[in-house]
Amino acid sequence: MNALKRRILADGKNLGNGILKVDGFINHQVDPQLMDACGREFAARFAHLGATKILTAEISGIAPALTTGQHLGLPVVYARKQKPITMPNEIFLTLTPSHTKGRTVELIVSPEYLGAGERVLIIDDFLASGQTMLGLVRLAQAAGARVVGAGALIEKSFEGGREAVAALQIPFESLVIITGMSDGQIIFAD
Amino acid sequence: MNALKRRILADGKNLGNGILKVDGFINHQVDPQLMDACGREFAARFAHLGATKILTAEISGIAPALTTGQHLGLPVVYARKQKPITMPNEIFLTLTPSHTKGRTVELIVSPEYLGAGERVLIIDDFLASGQTMLGLVRLAQAAGARVVGAGALIEKSFEGGREAVAALQIPFESLVIITGMSDGQIIFAD
Repeated sequence: MNALKRRILADGKNLGNGILKVDGFINHQVDPQLMDACGREFAARFAHLGATKILTAEISGIAPALTTGQHLGLPVVYARKQKPITMPNEIFLTLTPSHTKGRTVELIVSPEYLGAGERVLIIDDFLASGQTMLGLVRLAQAAGARVVGAGALIEKSFEGGREAVAALQIPFESLVIITGMSDGQIIFAD
Repeated sequence: MNALKRRILADGKNLGNGILKVDGFINHQVDPQLMDACGREFAARFAHLGATKILTAEISGIAPALTTGQHLGLPVVYARKQKPITMPNEIFLTLTPSHTKGRTVELIVSPEYLGAGERVLIIDDFLASGQTMLGLVRLAQAAGARVVGAGALIEKSFEGGREAVAALQIPFESLVIITGMSDGQIIFAD
């Protein structure tokens, strides 16, 4: 998606070690218009899947998941990383290694909002190693739901995520694919 | 705002001790259409303030802040509760007691995205004691920005937040005001 690619080129920063800083428009400061355009694009690509619910992980998945939900008319569930006091004691929980945090994080969903019969579309900001995406898939499966598709704003194709999600045999779409970040560069596919 | 009030009556739960569970449409599962309507309402009420940026606190402030940003055409900054590796070492940080967590949390903003000359509109999900709102105000002030208004989806008028923000002498708007939650009830103003 050209608008996102242009924005990464203008405002993204390659911090080294495969870390792409997009804090100016996705991860700390959010550009609502850009997120709306990304949500519209996801909605167009996934409209045929008959999804009934969107699933993402807090925190930075929320913005693109919400705008996708707006365009598809679907509720959005964000997996929590800490169990709030409003959540029942029986929960779905999975552990997933966090690339950027250097530790394992919990992903938690309440059975109240994810259950058998749901057709789940997963939306997240990044696809890197794919571990967060696989964690969300495990949560959906634990709930008896079916994952019908998955999307990421930005895929780093050199960290194995595409191969990890390929095993799921579901449609996967990323709006921008970055194929290399060595020597301070940001190289896009195409 | 009637749509939000109706939804609280239909799906909100009074868990006791002043805890209102709105996990089904705001805090864990999000209703994008309802959040869009709330954002449109905030935009209408605050359009005259000439805000240049919206500030909220992760996690549950993100959805209403984002939709308000969509309708006002403004970037949204969400204060982080943990410093990500993409953030510079010089940051604005304030401590604020969390009503629902029973402990103090950090609110962190990067100077990259909040600075002198900004006219800041604060949007959050709840106004309870007002401590999160005041923490966000301190961050904006530390950045040299001016807070021009503040809004919350749901105000619990019996926890002192209105009095706390009144001292700021800025326009404050809540879309729904709850005046009492004793005996399992949810009592609205008006």
